[in-house]
Amino acid sequence: MNSSPQAEVFEVPAEVFEAAYWLRVQSNSLKQTKALVSELSLQFYKLGWLSGTGGSVTLKVHEHNVPKQNQFIVMSPSGVQKDRMSPEDMYVLSSSGSIFSPPPTKSYPNNPPKCTDCAPLFLKVYEMCNAGAVIHSHGLDACLVTMINSSSNEFRIRNMEMIKGIQGHGYHDELVVPIIENAPSEEKLVESLTKAIRGYPKSTAVLVRRHGVFIWGDTWISAKTQAECYHYLFAAAIKLHQLGLPY
Amino acid sequence: MNSSPQAEVFEVPAEVFEAAYWLRVQSNSLKQTKALVSELSLQFYKLGWLSGTGGSVTLKVHEHNVPKQNQFIVMSPSGVQKDRMSPEDMYVLSSSGSIFSPPPTKSYPNNPPKCTDCAPLFLKVYEMCNAGAVIHSHGLDACLVTMINSSSNEFRIRNMEMIKGIQGHGYHDELVVPIIENAPSEEKLVESLTKAIRGYPKSTAVLVRRHGVFIWGDTWISAKTQAECYHYLFAAAIKLHQLGLPY
Amino acid sequence: MNSSPQAEVFEVPAEVFEAAYWLRVQSNSLKQTKALVSELSLQFYKLGWLSGTGGSVTLKVHEHNVPKQNQFIVMSPSGVQKDRMSPEDMYVLSSSGSIFSPPPTKSYPNNPPKCTDCAPLFLKVYEMCNAGAVIHSHGLDACLVTMINSSSNEFRIRNMEMIKGIQGHGYHDELVVPIIENAPSEEKLVESLTKAIRGYPKSTAVLVRRHGVFIWGDTWISAKTQAECYHYLFAAAIKLHQLGLPY
Amino acid sequence: MNSSPQAEVFEVPAEVFEAAYWLRVQSNSLKQTKALVSELSLQFYKLGWLSGTGGSVTLKVHEHNVPKQNQFIVMSPSGVQKDRMSPEDMYVLSSSGSIFSPPPTKSYPNNPPKCTDCAPLFLKVYEMCNAGAVIHSHGLDACLVTMINSSSNEFRIRNMEMIKGIQGHGYHDELVVPIIENAPSEEKLVESLTKAIRGYPKSTAVLVRRHGVFIWGDTWISAKTQAECYHYLFAAAIKLHQLGLPY
Repeated sequence: MNSSPQAEVFEVPAEVFEAAYWLRVQSNSLKQTKALVSELSLQFYKLGWLSGTGGSVTLKVHEHNVPKQNQFIVMSPSGVQKDRMSPEDMYVLSSSGSIFSPPPTKSYPNNPPKCTDCAPLFLKVYEMCNAGAVIHSHGLDACLVTMINSSSNEFRIRNMEMIKGIQGHGYHDELVVPIIENAPSEEKLVESLTKAIRGYPKSTAVLVRRHGVFIWGDTWISAKTQAECYHYLFAAAIKLHQLGLPY
Repeated sequence: MNSSPQAEVFEVPAEVFEAAYWLRVQSNSLKQTKALVSELSLQFYKLGWLSGTGGSVTLKVHEHNVPKQNQFIVMSPSGVQKDRMSPEDMYVLSSSGSIFSPPPTKSYPNNPPKCTDCAPLFLKVYEMCNAGAVIHSHGLDACLVTMINSSSNEFRIRNMEMIKGIQGHGYHDELVVPIIENAPSEEKLVESLTKAIRGYPKSTAVLVRRHGVFIWGDTWISAKTQAECYHYLFAAAIKLHQLGLPY
Repeated sequence: MNSSPQAEVFEVPAEVFEAAYWLRVQSNSLKQTKALVSELSLQFYKLGWLSGTGGSVTLKVHEHNVPKQNQFIVMSPSGVQKDRMSPEDMYVLSSSGSIFSPPPTKSYPNNPPKCTDCAPLFLKVYEMCNAGAVIHSHGLDACLVTMINSSSNEFRIRNMEMIKGIQGHGYHDELVVPIIENAPSEEKLVESLTKAIRGYPKSTAVLVRRHGVFIWGDTWISAKTQAECYHYLFAAAIKLHQLGLPY
Repeated sequence: MNSSPQAEVFEVPAEVFEAAYWLRVQSNSLKQTKALVSELSLQFYKLGWLSGTGGSVTLKVHEHNVPKQNQFIVMSPSGVQKDRMSPEDMYVLSSSGSIFSPPPTKSYPNNPPKCTDCAPLFLKVYEMCNAGAVIHSHGLDACLVTMINSSSNEFRIRNMEMIKGIQGHGYHDELVVPIIENAPSEEKLVESLTKAIRGYPKSTAVLVRRHGVFIWGDTWISAKTQAECYHYLFAAAIKLHQLGLPY
């Protein structure tokens, strides 16, 4: 007791310090973003975009002056009811895609679900498109427009006012959305999604045949607004097709 | 008063003791399950599955460690408005189907309705499919898909992402749902429902021609999720049929 | 001041005494009925039955042991928004159709609207059908089924489970609803409505060509339930017609 | 300090005094009108008229005894989500169209949006039609009825009860709504809108091809009621067209 034992030296990795710092800076925004994901999930469920646990919403935490590599990403777990999510149910990922924190065990005592199967697709969109939010919708019309022309790899529509709601488009622009083929699991879509984004740099959406659509924007407001415009245009295309009218 | 009279001996049957015990164990879960049936009934009414008092929802009380034969089942009364139910309005049945408790007289002062006409069908599904919940929907599209091919005893659809939401199915699996013929009363459907379940062990739903559909799952979440997927697929089939597209 | 002046004698008519008595007896029920009319009006507005101030709901006050001739009837004013009614906005009529009390001036300071134009039609239904409630809907499908066969004076449908929801009908019964021709004002429909009710004693509804439908029941629950079934069947008929299927 | 300095004389323009006076008189009504615009915007969003930030609602402040030239007009900012507006988010314009007050900076810290692009169109309707409210809807059916007969400059419908809901129309009147061609920006529609209003003095609506519709009324209730009737009639026309029926 008269000789003090040599203190054990812990080496705290620099990245842990850094993460802790950025978490503290963004904790309020993170809380709000989680709440917003659960609120938007319910709203989009009611629009028919997220039924049967299908589809998903992801948002990047937007805190002023946080370097891009330190921005957190919020995602839903896989296979959960989108009309009944709580802010605490969310996964938090680092901007590079590693899981920063899973939902607490108390939300899922028996069987904590893994992060959404869309994670690799969402991360690809964040990376390639500098997106602030991505919406994956199973809306029936989004599914059906890929089946009207089953041999075409593009959905095209023009001369509709709502095209003005899509980023970078005016009323006289034709809207072209690439269609990729579906695959038995979401991760198998990564390659074709990547190719479609590269091939259609003007597009803020990629349709997946017999499945749905991925839509993104700089902010959640932009993603949501564009998602409403895309779904309006898909619905219009189906109706016009039924009426035998060109579009 | 100085001679104590011989105490009268009541024989309390063993099963009464047992029921009282299990009721006490499960009373909280029972209360929550009743509330959930009334909440889901309103939600499904808004989706158009339970209009005109048609259709019904039933849930098994899921209390950890309760032996299967002691699990209670909650069902709605017959012919009541599904958008206006209270938790107290419910019937509680034993797992073997005998009525454990009817709704209290105060809910229905004049004319206490009997238990749902679907009870024998629900009990058959609980028994044969080890279900935790059953949804009987009158959704219009569920009705119409049985009429498109009025001579077929099966609804078939494939190559739709939402098929993945049906238990035991991947994207490349064809979904096959048996169709049974309607009858003037629900109890006359028991035999054909039994046969359909036996004939289609992979299916978690049975369509009833010109009527609707029975859908079940291990838990209420599974039943609800699958019900959303089935209704999406029924709607898709009607639309594709109208558009002259194969499915 | 020392001689008391002769008291003036007012003759209070017997019917005023009687009305005052019955009003007191039914005042609670009357209050609840007014609230229910405004609640149901909003619900039916959301279903698309009462848009553009069109359509209307009327209920009879159901107080136990009140003689039929003393039962009050609640009706909405004419031309008001059905999604924004208050219980105080209602007219109260005697069972014979005379206005017992209009909505208070504070609800309509400038321009107190008259009682619904449907009043003579509603009163006719109350009188002839012993109804407890009548719903007049402008639901689009109700309008369209009268136009599919513009030369027929009947809407017919059979082999649909939802027919069981219509009073007096089983699954094997054909549902027949008379269609009367529209007129420029509601009061001009009284004669043809009367004739249709007489000609179709089994029906609890009369369709009005290019206009909508009147539906009634013994109680508000029966009227609402049947209204949901009728609208389901109208929607089904339109869809089946579009699909080229018999009904 | 012992000699009082000559007071500086400010010339306060008479119109500032006047505006301040009328603002004080109408401040309560203005507050209510802002709240009503945000409430109606949400309601119309849910009806599908204002999705994707498209469409807009504007109301005139109705204060008794305020001279027409001193009535304020409330408008939404441009490109904002119509399901998420607060009363404070609104622009207030003078009756001549100059901006009286923009939304406070705290509502839009970074990027205060300009007043709705529809402002010049709304002001034209206020001026020419003595309107109390104008609704610009992107409802899909409003868009589609302009495309069914792409060569016609009029939408016509008759023999529908709901025509009675349009100001100045009875059941036997044909409803004629002018259609103007769309343009890449709203301000380029002013001339053709003006011409259409002049050419169709009986109409309370102008359709814009592949875009939507402008609807107005003396009061917000009249504008809303008529908007519901117009959208009903547009939906009916699309359905009747699909069914091959005349209208």
